[in-house]
Amino acid sequence: MSLETYWKQREQLIREDRAQRVDTARIQSLTELEKRADRIVRDVRSAEAKSIWAMDSQSIFDYNPEDATPNVFPGMAFLTARETVMKTRLFQILSKMPKGALLHIHLDATVNAQVLLNLAAAQPNMHVRASARLTIRNVKAILPEFRALPQSEFTDRTSLTDASYTGNEWIPLHKARKTFDETLGGADGFDSWCISALMINPSEAYGTHDMPTKIWAKFSNIFRISHPLVYYAPIFEEYIRLFLLSSVEDGISFLEPRINFFHKTMAGADGTENISHREWFVIFENVVNGVKKELRQQGRENEFTGAKIIYTTVRLVAPEDLEWYLEDCLQLKKEFPHLLAGFDLVGHEDSLRPLIDYIEPLTRFVERQKELGIDVPFILHAGETLGDGNAPDMNLYDAILLGTKRIGHGFSLVKHPKLMDICKERDIAVEVCPISNEILRLTSSMPTHPLPILVNHGVHVALCSDDPAIFGNMGLSFDFFQVLVASEVTGLMTLGEFARDSIKYSSLDDAEKVHALALWEERWQPFLRWVVQEQMTSN
Amino acid sequence: MSLETYWKQREQLIREDRAQRVDTARIQSLTELEKRADRIVRDVRSAEAKSIWAMDSQSIFDYNPEDATPNVFPGMAFLTARETVMKTRLFQILSKMPKGALLHIHLDATVNAQVLLNLAAAQPNMHVRASARLTIRNVKAILPEFRALPQSEFTDRTSLTDASYTGNEWIPLHKARKTFDETLGGADGFDSWCISALMINPSEAYGTHDMPTKIWAKFSNIFRISHPLVYYAPIFEEYIRLFLLSSVEDGISFLEPRINFFHKTMAGADGTENISHREWFVIFENVVNGVKKELRQQGRENEFTGAKIIYTTVRLVAPEDLEWYLEDCLQLKKEFPHLLAGFDLVGHEDSLRPLIDYIEPLTRFVERQKELGIDVPFILHAGETLGDGNAPDMNLYDAILLGTKRIGHGFSLVKHPKLMDICKERDIAVEVCPISNEILRLTSSMPTHPLPILVNHGVHVALCSDDPAIFGNMGLSFDFFQVLVASEVTGLMTLGEFARDSIKYSSLDDAEKVHALALWEERWQPFLRWVVQEQMTSN
Repeated sequence: MSLETYWKQREQLIREDRAQRVDTARIQSLTELEKRADRIVRDVRSAEAKSIWAMDSQSIFDYNPEDATPNVFPGMAFLTARETVMKTRLFQILSKMPKGALLHIHLDATVNAQVLLNLAAAQPNMHVRASARLTIRNVKAILPEFRALPQSEFTDRTSLTDASYTGNEWIPLHKARKTFDETLGGADGFDSWCISALMINPSEAYGTHDMPTKIWAKFSNIFRISHPLVYYAPIFEEYIRLFLLSSVEDGISFLEPRINFFHKTMAGADGTENISHREWFVIFENVVNGVKKELRQQGRENEFTGAKIIYTTVRLVAPEDLEWYLEDCLQLKKEFPHLLAGFDLVGHEDSLRPLIDYIEPLTRFVERQKELGIDVPFILHAGETLGDGNAPDMNLYDAILLGTKRIGHGFSLVKHPKLMDICKERDIAVEVCPISNEILRLTSSMPTHPLPILVNHGVHVALCSDDPAIFGNMGLSFDFFQVLVASEVTGLMTLGEFARDSIKYSSLDDAEKVHALALWEERWQPFLRWVVQEQMTSN
Repeated sequence: MSLETYWKQREQLIREDRAQRVDTARIQSLTELEKRADRIVRDVRSAEAKSIWAMDSQSIFDYNPEDATPNVFPGMAFLTARETVMKTRLFQILSKMPKGALLHIHLDATVNAQVLLNLAAAQPNMHVRASARLTIRNVKAILPEFRALPQSEFTDRTSLTDASYTGNEWIPLHKARKTFDETLGGADGFDSWCISALMINPSEAYGTHDMPTKIWAKFSNIFRISHPLVYYAPIFEEYIRLFLLSSVEDGISFLEPRINFFHKTMAGADGTENISHREWFVIFENVVNGVKKELRQQGRENEFTGAKIIYTTVRLVAPEDLEWYLEDCLQLKKEFPHLLAGFDLVGHEDSLRPLIDYIEPLTRFVERQKELGIDVPFILHAGETLGDGNAPDMNLYDAILLGTKRIGHGFSLVKHPKLMDICKERDIAVEVCPISNEILRLTSSMPTHPLPILVNHGVHVALCSDDPAIFGNMGLSFDFFQVLVASEVTGLMTLGEFARDSIKYSSLDDAEKVHALALWEERWQPFLRWVVQEQMTSN
């Protein structure tokens, strides 16, 4: 065989191998602008792989562990990489990119923990307690507990660190913060104590809790601790507003948060537990409209298409108790058809009930929708596991048989050739959460994440942040970054296709999608021009 | 949809999803004995997952990192799991299993480091040196260097730890061992010093060197250090013999070691560097025949079919220098047609030359074989990388275009749908080395290894140990164990198919394969009976 023939066959083989990728068609017809921007981003990535991530900076034969630098490389574990990521030019570029829709995010883990704490401190009814007086010796072991109390239950206690605190007494949060002992850091120490209970830190993810079951113990605890803060009506409203606004700042134009309706009420301003699910929807809708108005006043209405709710409850409920939630969801859909996008069951798949346990109520739910003439698609978590053939991996079969519109995570989907084919045939997209998967220890870093397998097999994906308040991956720029640096096939044009797909596979109706896509394209072109211009001025 | 219909559809979907697996056909027609043995092994695995690996032993809500046990789970990192693995009943069962062929193993990393050291100590010409006198302060930082010297170069030095040792002087190994200072542990201390340079320990793999580039620095060093020991004719011969015998003890009946012919000669008994590649083949053949005879005398001739050599050199050679090796390989094939199985290029794919650099000599090699009327298939390493579209990942295209008979590692193959299809169409098996991949940091543990993806896509695999002297995974039982505990789909019948495939995809000729497979089946049935009987007596 001549070398010329060899090279031709090689190109042909690579082309066939990549034929199913979502970016393949577009790459064959790029404009000059697109080609240049893509090239620039690839060059920045290569340069920073050497200058920042040091991947090629040492010969393997010269490596001496005695003077070992930390194990840095592109796509390394996020919690230890975050500060470095933020200093890269690549991240600065991606921060400006229009991202499309964010389709997998749990509402109660979307706003920075410090910001949440500040919101809480402004609420006179919000209280905090600890199981014992906090001292330098126990402060790391004792977790805070929050609750909005009605005035009738207020006490005259003011400090968690005072000798008179005997444990478990509620203190108004703003007072507890102000009176936090100086030896424990004062008000800042109070905030640190709370924030360490509301986020995952590197020594947990990569040390003590370095396996899914253990890190989920911390992760689940965070939701239990933050719940009374987020699901308190005055905070809830402002929390949603900040979530939407910060998302828009990161270039996200549409959102489908999953809201946890497991608790049947939340506390209202006066601390009484009486705000029904219906009122949660009303608050949500008001905030969405408020944000739209705010942006319109700034001439930025094109940056935000809106937001819809995915109704979720937790895989803790007994199958017979699920009926209540399904009926609740149907009633809400009737009243808020434009606002309710779908139904999901959430929680740690490895330890909670598999979907098949709920098969009776879930199939009845489908029948009920037909009776009522409404459509509430399933948008189910499935396959968020390392298992092969275990219950959470088997959830993928049930999610697909139940007709799920998208798959949440689908981390183990790559093990299922038939299910990947079905996803392509039935246009089921996968909500891939790269940083979440890594911090929750399904992958040790991005280079071992299965995303390229899905992409090369032609399964459509939307990149998502899952729980950014806990992981620190606010917006979508961090997840886009981690994906981009971990593959040499993936480029800026690939990320553009992911953004387009996030809109195509959203719960917007057809007309809304056309509109949202057009608005996205309107922002994409100036973004590419900016990438090219920045490059010219910086060189 | 009725629940009955749902369950039927579910079973059908699972069946279709698993249709391409190598064990699917067999599972549909198992004998009673096979069913019982498979069930027993699954039950032992489940029981030990709880009793030994503690996976389900703690509720995630009760987990307290303060009293944290180490992160143990089935398929966890091998170097820290090894002692526990050996205590399991599952491992004891697998130790008795007939494994078939071992198709991916580097000869110079096959015999236990302590045993190698004992062989070396018995050779008066074998010497050792250090760059300085060894003391308690420097002994961990200084590496040993070995060399067989001719008598003319002997010195009267006797100790590496004596005050008179000024560094870099050669000491006869047996003397250096005997005189090793008591404060450094005496002879045992000498052995520890050598062995720590010949194996990878957990704190390296999971601490200081926890990424592929770094652990490869240590890994490559081991080969440089051990080379003069293994490639010294008197040791070489005994080394091969011990490798074959210990493999047979683990139930392996045929072997295709890769031998590194990068150095053009090795030292003979008198310490002179004059043993040509041709003589290496003669030694190898004599040892194989000797082992056959030894086993025949014990009435065990059915346990060992033989061994063939895969000729390898290292991806360090300049493309123009490769010609010499290719021609050398052809000449050896002419003289030892029954002994030479194929050709490969080895070394760290991420840092050494990609296959495409050698495309001219490699395609000429194919032409030369046609001229000579001989057949030396490529059996190429490719895709031993975390990369997506980087040079080592691209090696997969070249290995396949060059017509490779099998793929060594193919770790990144799962990212390539077309290449997986070609592997199935052209019957290219993948030599999967689970423990090697984990210790060399391509996967943090077995549950994240891509093996199930290959298997479910219908790609044929042979499980291999790669470099057991360095990793501690002697034989194949450890790799079989790690694979079995990391998947609930995989069972003993799956491992049986892997064993059959290892023979089918070996370099035995058709008649030899039929014979080897028949011998394997003859041992498989008694093994299954033993599994069932053991279970009855132990309960």
